[in-house]
Amino acid sequence: MALIVQKFGGTSVANPDKIKAVAKRVLACKKKGNDMVVVLSAMAGETNRFVDLANQMQAIPDPREMDVLLSSGEQVTIALFAMAVKEMGDDAVSLLGDQVKIVTDRMHTKARIKEIDSALIHKHLKDGKIVVVAGFQGVTPDGDITTLGRGGSDTTAVALAAALKADQCDIFTDVDGVYTTDPNICAAARKIDRITYDEMLELASLGAKVLDIRSVGIAKRYKVPLHVRSTFTENEGTWVVEEDKKMESMQISGVTYNKNEARITIAKVPDQPGTASKIFKPISDAGIVVDMIIQNTRGTEMTDMTFTVPRTDYKRAMTLVEKIAADIGAESVSGATDIVKVSVVGVGMRNHSGIATTMFDTLSSEGVNIMMISTSEIKISCVIEEKYTELAVRSLHKAFNLDQAA
Amino acid sequence: MALIVQKFGGTSVANPDKIKAVAKRVLACKKKGNDMVVVLSAMAGETNRFVDLANQMQAIPDPREMDVLLSSGEQVTIALFAMAVKEMGDDAVSLLGDQVKIVTDRMHTKARIKEIDSALIHKHLKDGKIVVVAGFQGVTPDGDITTLGRGGSDTTAVALAAALKADQCDIFTDVDGVYTTDPNICAAARKIDRITYDEMLELASLGAKVLDIRSVGIAKRYKVPLHVRSTFTENEGTWVVEEDKKMESMQISGVTYNKNEARITIAKVPDQPGTASKIFKPISDAGIVVDMIIQNTRGTEMTDMTFTVPRTDYKRAMTLVEKIAADIGAESVSGATDIVKVSVVGVGMRNHSGIATTMFDTLSSEGVNIMMISTSEIKISCVIEEKYTELAVRSLHKAFNLDQAA
Repeated sequence: MALIVQKFGGTSVANPDKIKAVAKRVLACKKKGNDMVVVLSAMAGETNRFVDLANQMQAIPDPREMDVLLSSGEQVTIALFAMAVKEMGDDAVSLLGDQVKIVTDRMHTKARIKEIDSALIHKHLKDGKIVVVAGFQGVTPDGDITTLGRGGSDTTAVALAAALKADQCDIFTDVDGVYTTDPNICAAARKIDRITYDEMLELASLGAKVLDIRSVGIAKRYKVPLHVRSTFTENEGTWVVEEDKKMESMQISGVTYNKNEARITIAKVPDQPGTASKIFKPISDAGIVVDMIIQNTRGTEMTDMTFTVPRTDYKRAMTLVEKIAADIGAESVSGATDIVKVSVVGVGMRNHSGIATTMFDTLSSEGVNIMMISTSEIKISCVIEEKYTELAVRSLHKAFNLDQAA
Repeated sequence: MALIVQKFGGTSVANPDKIKAVAKRVLACKKKGNDMVVVLSAMAGETNRFVDLANQMQAIPDPREMDVLLSSGEQVTIALFAMAVKEMGDDAVSLLGDQVKIVTDRMHTKARIKEIDSALIHKHLKDGKIVVVAGFQGVTPDGDITTLGRGGSDTTAVALAAALKADQCDIFTDVDGVYTTDPNICAAARKIDRITYDEMLELASLGAKVLDIRSVGIAKRYKVPLHVRSTFTENEGTWVVEEDKKMESMQISGVTYNKNEARITIAKVPDQPGTASKIFKPISDAGIVVDMIIQNTRGTEMTDMTFTVPRTDYKRAMTLVEKIAADIGAESVSGATDIVKVSVVGVGMRNHSGIATTMFDTLSSEGVNIMMISTSEIKISCVIEEKYTELAVRSLHKAFNLDQAA
């Protein structure tokens, strides 16, 4: 007998029939002798409807009131779900964020969980009930409703699993797990059976959209075994867990890509102390997040500075940078939005030399020019022209033997 | 400067434009120097949508979960309303039933308010905010969400006004006040300027739908001046207040009618002790509420028993009564649904003799046969054939001089 937290997203509870199907599934798991805690999102489409209503009321909707509005969505699904369980002859109780006491900071619309009181949930579990918790929402110490931002229901589920010391946390989604790369552009992509928290963190931050990155961080900190799986099949999905011996034999776990960046180059920047600060402080003051930065020295007194920014901030960043370049006496500014960042990720990289060489050789042999490179302990990223995305992903996937089962 | 509670129903907040109009109106009242507390219902149509969803989940939806579901409706309107106020440059804060601490008993879907904590509302008022409270909802001492049943937002508003010791409670509705009778069937109907709590209680229980009867009872107990008025005009509506000298000069305040009853007659009931109990206990055990009861003695050993039940319970009651009649040896059972109860109401009745005579004479001179009569200190009701409804209401309205301004 285990304590299992299961999270279902908005498309899994989009209408009464889907809610019933999910209830049936949870019940089957309970009947195997498990204690069940279910975390639900709002019905698909509801959040957009609320955002639309809010935009009709206020140019920039008040964050506190936005949270009151948005959190009503999960309230609907947890009540309907509890009814479905009762109709099936079992027992369930719905709990809102403030009823559980999922205490957060006061950052409305993107709050962070500070503390969870597990007493009430344990009491209901002891009474034999399925506990149905509203995802995405919490409450400040003063009793104001907060929401956790994008992917907030994943965070609720993992944080609850940590607080309850659950044996596992199942994240149900519309895909059947985490893949070695995007199956939409690489037919040879395979589902990964086991992956470490660190690898998942890299994959999530690099563009894989299966799991919210914050929830992976919490799972790692509290060692919550995560199981990412499909709502529509009974198959095993991907386990996100602590590193184990078996994993080290793999060089690379996955290939990922991110098309949401743009490149900006300032040519012939006078190479003086303080120049980098003069360039990047105004950008960061404007709330623009710089990802990669590369500096190419030209002789002794000149340098080229290239960096990437989110594509949505590109125009704003270019306007800023052109002004900065004039101020510091740089020669010219150029940029491009037709780039992609392709990355290979794997804890095995630490024990295998030559990963970088293989990556560069592979891209080079396909005629793909590398514009920028960035590395971490378990990842190598290359910025290339966007038109080579599919070619690069497929050839790297093959080069690292990801086409074959582990 | 006064503290004013204003309640707006679902049709007044049915869409973003209507919510803005209401916000504008509340702001205008605040700008005159008043402290404003606003109570809102769910957008028109939302409650029906939730009931429909619940019925798809469970044959008899669980009452606790029903309350979690239903209460999400007001949560949406209070958030949108607060945004609208902020967009207009003023300040507002929304509060749910459990945030205010509107503590109720545990009777889900028809809970009664036990206690209201006014501290948080006073704090926000002191900070210059319009306080926007979700109507219709409360919280049990254990923290479960409850709802107050039909007309619950009126109850919330009046109970809040009582707890806050507000100077007045405005109930906004789609009519411009309480009328001497139904304007739809009597063109001479006039808006009443002032009416007592007791008269309003009789009118509400006799079929006038303007105000929920529970809220009138609370207003009476705590002496909250109620102002029933139109959302769509600036005109004064009807004040529901304590009795004053001026009112006594009026004989009758209004004529009302109720078509929701049906008549059942048991003929030739053996007149023995305990017979009434044998008839009415099974009916009340079946949850059917009997309103009027009349007994006509026929000689010494036989009596006819006539009574009214809600029209929706008529068939069920007839089945029961036919069985009872056979058991007690009565001769026959007859009944009719084409009846109406017409009533005249007024505190002035206590100081004016001849009200009953005027009523009976008026109906008789129009050829209307009276089937049953029932009286209270401030009301006389007659059951007549339904087809005479309009005729009876109009002639009574004229006979008691309600056509002329007071």
